[in-house]
Amino acid sequence: MSITHTTTPAADGFHMPAEWAAQAGCWMIWPERPDNWRLGGKPAQEVFAQVASAIAEYEPVTMLVSAGQFQNARSHLPETVRVIEMSNDDSWMRDVGPTFVVDPAGRKRGVDWIFNAWGGLVDGLYFPWDKDDAIAQKTLEIEGVDRYRAPLVLEGGSIDVDGEGTVIVTEECLLSEGRNPDLTREQIEQHLKDYLGVSVVIWLPYGVYLDETNGHTDNFCRFVAPGKVMLTWTDDVSDPQYERSAAALRILESAVDAQGRHLEVVKIHQPGPIFITAEESAGVDAVDGTLPRQEGDRLAGSYVNSYIGNDVVILPLFDDVHDDAAVLAYKDMFPGRAIVTVPGREILLGGGNVHCITQQQPA
Amino acid sequence: MSITHTTTPAADGFHMPAEWAAQAGCWMIWPERPDNWRLGGKPAQEVFAQVASAIAEYEPVTMLVSAGQFQNARSHLPETVRVIEMSNDDSWMRDVGPTFVVDPAGRKRGVDWIFNAWGGLVDGLYFPWDKDDAIAQKTLEIEGVDRYRAPLVLEGGSIDVDGEGTVIVTEECLLSEGRNPDLTREQIEQHLKDYLGVSVVIWLPYGVYLDETNGHTDNFCRFVAPGKVMLTWTDDVSDPQYERSAAALRILESAVDAQGRHLEVVKIHQPGPIFITAEESAGVDAVDGTLPRQEGDRLAGSYVNSYIGNDVVILPLFDDVHDDAAVLAYKDMFPGRAIVTVPGREILLGGGNVHCITQQQPA
Repeated sequence: MSITHTTTPAADGFHMPAEWAAQAGCWMIWPERPDNWRLGGKPAQEVFAQVASAIAEYEPVTMLVSAGQFQNARSHLPETVRVIEMSNDDSWMRDVGPTFVVDPAGRKRGVDWIFNAWGGLVDGLYFPWDKDDAIAQKTLEIEGVDRYRAPLVLEGGSIDVDGEGTVIVTEECLLSEGRNPDLTREQIEQHLKDYLGVSVVIWLPYGVYLDETNGHTDNFCRFVAPGKVMLTWTDDVSDPQYERSAAALRILESAVDAQGRHLEVVKIHQPGPIFITAEESAGVDAVDGTLPRQEGDRLAGSYVNSYIGNDVVILPLFDDVHDDAAVLAYKDMFPGRAIVTVPGREILLGGGNVHCITQQQPA
Repeated sequence: MSITHTTTPAADGFHMPAEWAAQAGCWMIWPERPDNWRLGGKPAQEVFAQVASAIAEYEPVTMLVSAGQFQNARSHLPETVRVIEMSNDDSWMRDVGPTFVVDPAGRKRGVDWIFNAWGGLVDGLYFPWDKDDAIAQKTLEIEGVDRYRAPLVLEGGSIDVDGEGTVIVTEECLLSEGRNPDLTREQIEQHLKDYLGVSVVIWLPYGVYLDETNGHTDNFCRFVAPGKVMLTWTDDVSDPQYERSAAALRILESAVDAQGRHLEVVKIHQPGPIFITAEESAGVDAVDGTLPRQEGDRLAGSYVNSYIGNDVVILPLFDDVHDDAAVLAYKDMFPGRAIVTVPGREILLGGGNVHCITQQQPA
């Protein structure tokens, strides 16, 4: 039984916990759409299964899947992964799933944001997106978790909280023309406070260069501990990413979080740049209204786009010279957790990475 | 997490409990197919919602529903009813859902029978039926309950157990040409023993006259307590139902259950006969391969087709002269339970009744 509340989480004493807080489990969606995932989604499905299997070693995983792919997903996943039918438009559970919030009594509720495929008819990535927009509600129904329907177009990947009153967002995304053009920055900030239970919003100007999500912060800058963030970086001042990262760094160095702390910033050098190959491009269906995947297009690769689970972090690698440094940085940032690496390229080809395809449910 | 076991429930110490045993909840499926339910399923949906709401007063109810009908079902059901997307071919959860079995340690598992729409290509009621056949597995996945895939075509409505070692079935159904033509009666009986954890099978020759399920016992003869059954009856010796009921009575009067008891038989006089009206027939889509619903066709109305839940029985009525007697009989048979009546005609028009559209999950 899931009741939809018309109040707000903050008013009811709820807030979004940090990703490193204890979790009850993780939700994912099985990829399949052939106009986004090459070769009918088969290479991506293999990597999604690898990610799910890795997380399932540490906490329960539920894989949502369309009716048509149910048996195939079931056969590719270990029995430890729960598989549930749910129609979908694509496989980005971070962005379409509920944002879980908790209160001091240990109760759990879920925020169901309005989803419009990262920009609706302005610069959204596909049409329609009605199945994706229903996923948060359906997930909460399955779990019997009460729901808030937030009056805001937002994806889970565009916010990152420390669980202690602070959220990081980017102006590039939250102020984009395709999301909430009728809301002012102040009104958006108030919605963030109301629905995430935060008191401080840190606005970075941009995310990763050419990120098709309009610069989601979860591919760019995320909390790794209270008072500590990791930031996608490049030492190449000629790379378009440099000014984006440098601008964020300036803001982060002067920011004060909700607890009055200055932030420690860990720079994580980006991989690549990574480009789509001719073979990769050829495997994607050409469909009007869907973002094309063309040979030579630069991908928004990032090591920041990882998943923090119970006792584990799942980190995407790219067969890149910067892989080793990323692993070392993660070991240093998360001393109590196993760092499990997975091949990130196939997920990146679809437009995101490990964090984008996962959604934690707090304990 | 749901593991599929290749052993049998009986070998593992599991058996199917009686319907009157304590329940964790009830499963249903939202009706919609316009070639079976008149007027796009709207009148049936109203009654299904009424049944779900009534049961939800006593135990948790989950309504499974196709993606296309999700929002409509959600809006017609109280928030106390959990609504979960699941593709389906029709709405007979008794026949397509898992048969839950339990063991002395309180563990729960589910039997997933092969479903072929009540007779497959021989005399089945629609084609295809693959979505229905997947429902038991998907239900068990959601609940994280382990599964057996039984090597037998069978519907849950064709069996009725006392939870103490005895099952009632009909030859008309279990020996039908469209189900398991390659199995002998003895082999079928052994499967029933293995998958239901029973030791005695009571075979009645027929079910209700013109019952399109080939005479499911749940529309005809069911246990109401250990050593006690109710039987659809008619006093009209000229009615084709008379000889069917009389033949069953003769067998029941000489039967001995698994505990060595003789059976007490409560006769419940049938309603009607009930016939499809011209208006009712006109509201059903005509589709090749689906059982037509024609004006003047006799329906297999029965008061036996009820649902026994925690502290309650949901009983279908038919605006019939025999309604009152049925209610009185139920009050006498179930002294500790509320008898909640619902209008049964709309469900009957689709081919079954309250028991056919429900599936209990034991506590």
